Amino acid sequence: MKNYHLSPSQFREEGKKIIDWIADYYENIEKYPVLSQVEPGEVIEKLPNNPPQKAESFESIMKDMDEIIMPGITHWQSPNFYAYFPSNTSFPSILGDLVSSGLGVQGMIWATSPAATELETRVLDWLAEMMDMPEKFKSTSSGGGVIQDTASTSALTAVIAARERATKLESNKSGVRQKLVAYVSSQTHSSLEKAIKMAGIGSDNLRTIDVDATFAMRPDLLEEQIQGDKSNGFLPFFVCATIGTTSSNGMDPIRKIGEICNNQNCWLHVDAAMAGTAMLCPEFRHFKDGVELADSYCFNPHKWMFTNFDCDVFWVGNRSELINTFSILPEYLKNKATESGAVFDYRDWHVQLGRRFRALKLWFVIRQYGVEGLQYHIRKHVEMARDFARWVDASSDFELMVDPPLNLVCFRHKSDDEFNLKLMNAVNESGKAFFTHTKMNGRIALRMSIGQTHTEERHVKQTWELIQNTAKKLSLL
Amino acid sequence: MKNYHLSPSQFREEGKKIIDWIADYYENIEKYPVLSQVEPGEVIEKLPNNPPQKAESFESIMKDMDEIIMPGITHWQSPNFYAYFPSNTSFPSILGDLVSSGLGVQGMIWATSPAATELETRVLDWLAEMMDMPEKFKSTSSGGGVIQDTASTSALTAVIAARERATKLESNKSGVRQKLVAYVSSQTHSSLEKAIKMAGIGSDNLRTIDVDATFAMRPDLLEEQIQGDKSNGFLPFFVCATIGTTSSNGMDPIRKIGEICNNQNCWLHVDAAMAGTAMLCPEFRHFKDGVELADSYCFNPHKWMFTNFDCDVFWVGNRSELINTFSILPEYLKNKATESGAVFDYRDWHVQLGRRFRALKLWFVIRQYGVEGLQYHIRKHVEMARDFARWVDASSDFELMVDPPLNLVCFRHKSDDEFNLKLMNAVNESGKAFFTHTKMNGRIALRMSIGQTHTEERHVKQTWELIQNTAKKLSLL
Repeated sequence: MKNYHLSPSQFREEGKKIIDWIADYYENIEKYPVLSQVEPGEVIEKLPNNPPQKAESFESIMKDMDEIIMPGITHWQSPNFYAYFPSNTSFPSILGDLVSSGLGVQGMIWATSPAATELETRVLDWLAEMMDMPEKFKSTSSGGGVIQDTASTSALTAVIAARERATKLESNKSGVRQKLVAYVSSQTHSSLEKAIKMAGIGSDNLRTIDVDATFAMRPDLLEEQIQGDKSNGFLPFFVCATIGTTSSNGMDPIRKIGEICNNQNCWLHVDAAMAGTAMLCPEFRHFKDGVELADSYCFNPHKWMFTNFDCDVFWVGNRSELINTFSILPEYLKNKATESGAVFDYRDWHVQLGRRFRALKLWFVIRQYGVEGLQYHIRKHVEMARDFARWVDASSDFELMVDPPLNLVCFRHKSDDEFNLKLMNAVNESGKAFFTHTKMNGRIALRMSIGQTHTEERHVKQTWELIQNTAKKLSLL
Repeated sequence: MKNYHLSPSQFREEGKKIIDWIADYYENIEKYPVLSQVEPGEVIEKLPNNPPQKAESFESIMKDMDEIIMPGITHWQSPNFYAYFPSNTSFPSILGDLVSSGLGVQGMIWATSPAATELETRVLDWLAEMMDMPEKFKSTSSGGGVIQDTASTSALTAVIAARERATKLESNKSGVRQKLVAYVSSQTHSSLEKAIKMAGIGSDNLRTIDVDATFAMRPDLLEEQIQGDKSNGFLPFFVCATIGTTSSNGMDPIRKIGEICNNQNCWLHVDAAMAGTAMLCPEFRHFKDGVELADSYCFNPHKWMFTNFDCDVFWVGNRSELINTFSILPEYLKNKATESGAVFDYRDWHVQLGRRFRALKLWFVIRQYGVEGLQYHIRKHVEMARDFARWVDASSDFELMVDPPLNLVCFRHKSDDEFNLKLMNAVNESGKAFFTHTKMNGRIALRMSIGQTHTEERHVKQTWELIQNTAKKLSLL
């Protein structure tokens, strides 16, 4: 190791050990406490204060991996992970991402690796077809898709593109001067408020529209608010509708909201971060009815489509609106292909310049599962959620907050908020399952989000038993 | 494959094949044309128009990888890649990232994997020590570091945090209302202009300060411009200084600019995206003299520190300014650790909510090379650049544009611009090397950026001979 590099033959050896380490991990994953049990500072204390001057062996790194890092891991890939939203992955995704790391390609523009751009274009067109998305979102039409890191970044991208459409690129030039206002529901993800702040619009100019009993945005109230704002001299420019809100899995009525947006000249962004994957199955596509009225749409294969983080798919109906907003071309990035106009340079479709070759992992996943395999698992997850909801409904101690439209069940113990939080913490501290809470109509609700790659009926059943038994024990205290 | 998943034993088998595939790639990398030779549309045409309904074999995916994707790859990891800036990687980084993909952890907040947060905190403190950064940038002091995807995102983060400091969080609330102005040099990376647009400031409010003969920002002109803007009722709030500009490797005088910023109450962001890695070596640290006056600083281990894309390190001197700007806490993310205030939740340090466990690859790299090994390679790269510059200087046909401070050599053939572009295209089309151009003082300059992991003296020498021979051939035409 005179030159400090691992040689290719050392890489073969260590790499294969790590492949086995990962396979072992999945074979043993149910033995780990799902939620990490370390206390704040417990991991960092075990890491040396100072960096190593001398090269260390791979063996010593993997030893620390097992002894120091693993106890501090919350096991998102555990079949008993029901917290937040799923962030599932799969073996083909891990391998697709490994190929991407190995090639070390930076696909900021077409010329820096044509295959990175063109595979992304093709795979995102595939996905549009797989989900029966409107033609306009395909690259072969006026729009197209691009992989973003997260739905937060997609939201920011949509807000900024909308801002520029509404102000005819004037905000990019002179700054935000107009009295712009944007609209979300009370259930919309917090990333939208963050985007509105970052884009210089200001949270005072974000209107929160109330929802109905199913936690869906009320279009009548949206229209009323837009009219009111207009007569007060504001410029409504952006609405976010959600397919499957984070807290409650509310399904906003896309068609009605879209009609309002089209009439009022507002950009409609549809956030389907988690639930979007369900559009693979025809029987769930009614939730996106009206999506042809949207200007942009995003969903996260890194949530529920077996593709490892990060991978958010962002489609627009009119790519030139996006490109006009984000394009900057310094001399050092000029090249023949870009000047010819025959290629996409994806750096003009988002915030960042540099980009990883993320289409590979999606391509590996879609091909290794096939559309059929992906549908099979989505359907299984939804079935399990429906079973869980039935059990809750049949129980005398628990109640459903709302009928679960897909794979998120919101429920509660019939006692008070404090008891529900105590119950959740007790289950999580057992290490046998991990789920989280929210507030619905002012009351604590427990969230059972079902969508990890290896979750089977037996896991959901055991967890329901665990929740019931824990509640009984706590009631007796 | 009844359930469509790869089994752990299939993963072991396919994974090991891919490890070998990557090792083979590095053993044969010099046989590929560095710049992909495909035409626009050539890759996409070979990909099926429609997604596969049925699951496909791993074998067929890897066959298409070789036959369809590889011809469309521009080989960033080739030792003959001298274009743009390096985006180097290394075997330990690839393996660290593989472990991260395998664990599939989403580290948005401390609780979702304490080790992801605490390893990041510790490794970024190590890096601060390795580069002799001021104490304030460490987590043990008032500041701390966070991994961002790219320097573009760090720039946006800095601009927004600066905007909120200058307006006392008023822009987050009411939108950008003040007449804010920001300052860069004529050599600053285009991502800064993009950030100023995205943050709602507007490019009209970005002042471009002229540079001296070494392409460094002139602090006298900066001060003059700030004074002028103030007397015209503007609010100067942000300055970006660069250590190693993209086009020219200009070194802005951080101390002088920092003194002006401190006097004028402007946020100073230092962009050391590529050159920052050189701070590993004491002999190059004079370029960051005065950095204790900066509010934020970023550099990219994914450029020149053997860590695969994406990995940008962003430090701030006062983390509460950052957190106050970006923090949003919805009910569904509330948890005991966050409420205790004893932990960092890195989602409050940047644009995105979700985050990959990227500290692992950095940790693997630092440990496997040791500080010593990293210094060894940085010094070798700088030496090779100096050799190349000497050869150019000694040649009668070529000239240096400026003495290279580090690993980027800007030079040109003594004939006209057209000839230089023709020369560059001819070399690039040969497939034997890939380099790019820029404009300096209105003239085309060729850029030889030396920093790929496996670039040795012999590669640089061969490339210099290739450039000379190609120029001779073209002169004779």
